[in-house]
Amino acid sequence: MSAIPQEFLTKTAQLSDEVTRPFTASKKIYVEGSRPDIRVPMREVEQDPTHTQQGEELNPPIYIYDTSGPYTDPTVDIDLLKGLPALRADWIAERGDTEQLNGPSSEYGAARQGEASLSHLRFEHIRAPLKAKAGQNVSQMHYARKGIITPEMEYVAIRENLKLQEMRADPRYAKLLRQHKGESFGASIQNEVTPEFVRDEVASGRAIIPANINHPELEPMIIGRNFRVKINTNIGNSAISSSIEDEVEKMVWSARWGGDTLMDLSTGKNIHETREWILRNSPMPIGTVPIYQALEKVDGKAEDLTWEMFRDTLIEQAEQGVDYFTIHAGVLLRYVPLTANRLTGIVSRGGSIMAKWCLAHHEESFLYTHFDDICEIMKAYDVGFSLGDGLRPGCLADANDAAQFGELETLGELTRKAWYHDVQVMIEGPGHVPLQMVKENIEKELEDCFEAPFYTLGPLVTDIAPGYDHITSAIGAANIGWYGTAMLCYVTPKEHLGLPNKQDVRDGIITYKIAAHASDLAKGFPGVQVRDNALSKARFEFRWDDQFNLGLDPERARGFHDETMPKQAHKVAHFCSMCGPNFCSMKISQDVRDFAAKQGISDDEALKQGMKSKAVEFVEKGAEVYQKA
Amino acid sequence: MSAIPQEFLTKTAQLSDEVTRPFTASKKIYVEGSRPDIRVPMREVEQDPTHTQQGEELNPPIYIYDTSGPYTDPTVDIDLLKGLPALRADWIAERGDTEQLNGPSSEYGAARQGEASLSHLRFEHIRAPLKAKAGQNVSQMHYARKGIITPEMEYVAIRENLKLQEMRADPRYAKLLRQHKGESFGASIQNEVTPEFVRDEVASGRAIIPANINHPELEPMIIGRNFRVKINTNIGNSAISSSIEDEVEKMVWSARWGGDTLMDLSTGKNIHETREWILRNSPMPIGTVPIYQALEKVDGKAEDLTWEMFRDTLIEQAEQGVDYFTIHAGVLLRYVPLTANRLTGIVSRGGSIMAKWCLAHHEESFLYTHFDDICEIMKAYDVGFSLGDGLRPGCLADANDAAQFGELETLGELTRKAWYHDVQVMIEGPGHVPLQMVKENIEKELEDCFEAPFYTLGPLVTDIAPGYDHITSAIGAANIGWYGTAMLCYVTPKEHLGLPNKQDVRDGIITYKIAAHASDLAKGFPGVQVRDNALSKARFEFRWDDQFNLGLDPERARGFHDETMPKQAHKVAHFCSMCGPNFCSMKISQDVRDFAAKQGISDDEALKQGMKSKAVEFVEKGAEVYQKA
Repeated sequence: MSAIPQEFLTKTAQLSDEVTRPFTASKKIYVEGSRPDIRVPMREVEQDPTHTQQGEELNPPIYIYDTSGPYTDPTVDIDLLKGLPALRADWIAERGDTEQLNGPSSEYGAARQGEASLSHLRFEHIRAPLKAKAGQNVSQMHYARKGIITPEMEYVAIRENLKLQEMRADPRYAKLLRQHKGESFGASIQNEVTPEFVRDEVASGRAIIPANINHPELEPMIIGRNFRVKINTNIGNSAISSSIEDEVEKMVWSARWGGDTLMDLSTGKNIHETREWILRNSPMPIGTVPIYQALEKVDGKAEDLTWEMFRDTLIEQAEQGVDYFTIHAGVLLRYVPLTANRLTGIVSRGGSIMAKWCLAHHEESFLYTHFDDICEIMKAYDVGFSLGDGLRPGCLADANDAAQFGELETLGELTRKAWYHDVQVMIEGPGHVPLQMVKENIEKELEDCFEAPFYTLGPLVTDIAPGYDHITSAIGAANIGWYGTAMLCYVTPKEHLGLPNKQDVRDGIITYKIAAHASDLAKGFPGVQVRDNALSKARFEFRWDDQFNLGLDPERARGFHDETMPKQAHKVAHFCSMCGPNFCSMKISQDVRDFAAKQGISDDEALKQGMKSKAVEFVEKGAEVYQKA
Repeated sequence: MSAIPQEFLTKTAQLSDEVTRPFTASKKIYVEGSRPDIRVPMREVEQDPTHTQQGEELNPPIYIYDTSGPYTDPTVDIDLLKGLPALRADWIAERGDTEQLNGPSSEYGAARQGEASLSHLRFEHIRAPLKAKAGQNVSQMHYARKGIITPEMEYVAIRENLKLQEMRADPRYAKLLRQHKGESFGASIQNEVTPEFVRDEVASGRAIIPANINHPELEPMIIGRNFRVKINTNIGNSAISSSIEDEVEKMVWSARWGGDTLMDLSTGKNIHETREWILRNSPMPIGTVPIYQALEKVDGKAEDLTWEMFRDTLIEQAEQGVDYFTIHAGVLLRYVPLTANRLTGIVSRGGSIMAKWCLAHHEESFLYTHFDDICEIMKAYDVGFSLGDGLRPGCLADANDAAQFGELETLGELTRKAWYHDVQVMIEGPGHVPLQMVKENIEKELEDCFEAPFYTLGPLVTDIAPGYDHITSAIGAANIGWYGTAMLCYVTPKEHLGLPNKQDVRDGIITYKIAAHASDLAKGFPGVQVRDNALSKARFEFRWDDQFNLGLDPERARGFHDETMPKQAHKVAHFCSMCGPNFCSMKISQDVRDFAAKQGISDDEALKQGMKSKAVEFVEKGAEVYQKA
């Protein structure tokens, strides 16, 4: 911890390059909604033309779901000291159901704000918190249930569609829109996402839009089985490492590579101040596990936790703008002994804190007994629940056991309670589960929790690969996403071993973007194959730069290519390092196609009749093409 | 290419460290079969004891399937110039059905052997080839069908079991043998693999043991749906890169990390000599794509290929000891036009070569018309078929199309022909397939090809992640392995971008070991969860070194851990860098378990009755444990 303001300022000035530079051949565009202040960001990737014998054929731009926020918009001046623009401020104000407080209403929040010794690391432009007026409920679910389409709902509808309607109307995309039929396992995948559909999904509880009224900087997104599968990334300091600067840098880095939401899991020093910096600068919804901070307040003694101080922590964080809280309210006394014969007991930190508390007091936890009180707080700021799976399995052997599934049933009961209050809910899931047992998890979740969005950590499908658990878990994640999980919590290569550095965060995110996209493809979400098709077409046509630019990580793809073929000329070469210039299967098959097309060959009969006579010509033409390469 | 013999010798002397050093806490053991020269290698990993309040509890050694060959046996002197010991020589000789030729009977092989200018890079200790005596068939399938259990079959039975019987009889393994019920989709997973079962599987064609009589150095292994899922790795020089030394080094490297078979896909210079060095030093079966070398012989002009020169190439390679040949005999004239409207045409190199040949000559390829002749050659040396999928899809859009499935049906027809000759067969599969369409591939293969082992390249489940295609493909691989694929061809991070270096090879192999193991677990192969359980137990008990040693890549796991906690003392610390010393969920849940056990708490009722009175004691004990950490 070395966060003095000057240092932070210096860091700010440096944030611009690695984490903010625009992607090659890409520009930030904004799609306007029904009102000028609904401006939905997307990344537009330009493509080179295809050179054919008939001349140039233009390839249309491809649109990419963009989580990177204003950081990749060269027209926006980034100033971490001031935070991002409050793009939702008017939407919230217009609803007329909030009031601005004089200052933090939590004891802890007020104390931190008044503490002179913290001034050197405090975010300077703290707004006084908003809160629902007495008797009001400001949750997106509440509005949805009243039939209202909020600007947030319209925003996510535009965002999910990713210009699909425009592409459908544009003949240049006809071939690129080819897509296989999905298998959605009962999900209700729409041909087009409308604001009305968003509203109905939020109203039913099948989807959530995490959007605290005190986090007006966020770009709204939706989490639900009938939308694109999302990924969450984690950052956070710990007692032995990381500074505020590092955490903010990692947050921007997470947004850059595609994190949809971000959890601040800090357990070290100055958690309150770190969170403020993150929130004020994050375009992504932010989640936390409030019990972590509460535990810090009692010096790590779980048994000293009380409802009063936990309540104060919830208000503290809600007034800062946290968008969802992980609450382990399903850890009931009767489930705890069910973990005693497990191979790895309780591995969730929140779960073990609550288990310890329950055993120490021999009572159900205050999370459970005060659940209605928690809902009252959450609906006053629109904080969503992420009902924590405190008893998730920590190894394959413990997967799908009585403790895990018992807790899941309780989470279902709590979901109903939260929905009674119109509070948004998602449900956390495992963990470590062998492949053949993955499906049972989502099936049971959908049933027990009434289709509330499922949010899983992987699951890891084997325990034997420490150092590669981003991969062991991406296998489980792609499957469970396909089966219906709405959001996947990323895992980095450092899982089980240490704190991730920036490289690990990037590896974890890209791996999870792969898993989420594989799920979307498998479910048949409309339009998601466009990017695959465009990239494959570029590959086939040796448009190397387009292949890199359309990938999830253009920089790495370009770097790998350049390891063997560094020259710029190689970027337009009609061969690659795998086969070399003398032989290339893609080239041959292009010849086959050109030839077949020229002969009008489209079926077996035509082939038999037309080809023999042209065989010699083909050979000559083929050879000539080869010499050019 | 800088392969002068002195340089090779120098390299040889250097092979010992990175690619040959034994794994930490591991020793090579050999399990003896029914005769003293059946000695099946395994890696035995020692574990530290668990320290409990009652004293030390010993943790039994864990056995790992060991593909690394003699290179990790410190008692074996490695001399690449002489090659590995010919461990199968006696088995082959005893059968009395082979004869030693005077020298290579292929024209090309003889010419290369006589060429003075090659002497500086030729392997020195070339044996004269063996061949079946006239009228004899030396394939493992032929023996199996006669009811014979060869030493090779017994060897693989022992290898597959991995001391399972001994573990079952040893109470120390009781808890570690816990395993979930698998879902094998109709595979016939045995409670124990017997030599008789191996014989029957080979006889039926459901499994193959690639084992050329001219590759006596290999350690036999089996590929079949009812055995452990295997992985193949690829190496090979190309026109623009790599030397013989590099390829041999990569081969040993592949064996080290877990490659079960290895394909030499060289397309550059001195393919014949490179292959000889690899074969003489490889404990793994070696596969090739003979058409690649044939194409080199006609300077890359596919249309100049002839049956005669291809036949000569087969004999040349069979007499060197290649264990399986990829033969793209299913590329029929009528399928070629079916690829014309594909997004990426024909992407298999072998497939495009044959397509070009077929179109140029307007005839079915010599691979198809001379298939019986090919079988005659293969059964004289016991080379197995890997029937190539020349029309596999090169992108998601082209998955499961008429060209691909048409060829698959033809591969089934050819499988029957090969089996008529008692020649072993496996079937190659895709490629690029979205998740929801993966299963159709294996189902169709099992039906069309009569359960011949399926051998797939991934498949990649999305096209948008160049630089990460080891991961996009491992997702498909884990699934298709679970569904019944017998061997997975690895993909490295450099796929589509460049030639893999050693780091890429390692990443690709570990990723595929994960996929294969995930498949084994999902199918319920007996005993495979032992390693997961042991590693998880070690993790739970903070036996850091055991956790590393039991992993697929101990070096990387240790390195990652040491990035944040480098001190040796941290290896026995009861905490890790993620949460730090003040709070640890694993520690808490151990407390919970200790407490529950002490109270004899095993169910809800016991909990209610017994716990309240002990709550204070628990808190005290808990706090004390915490202060120690």
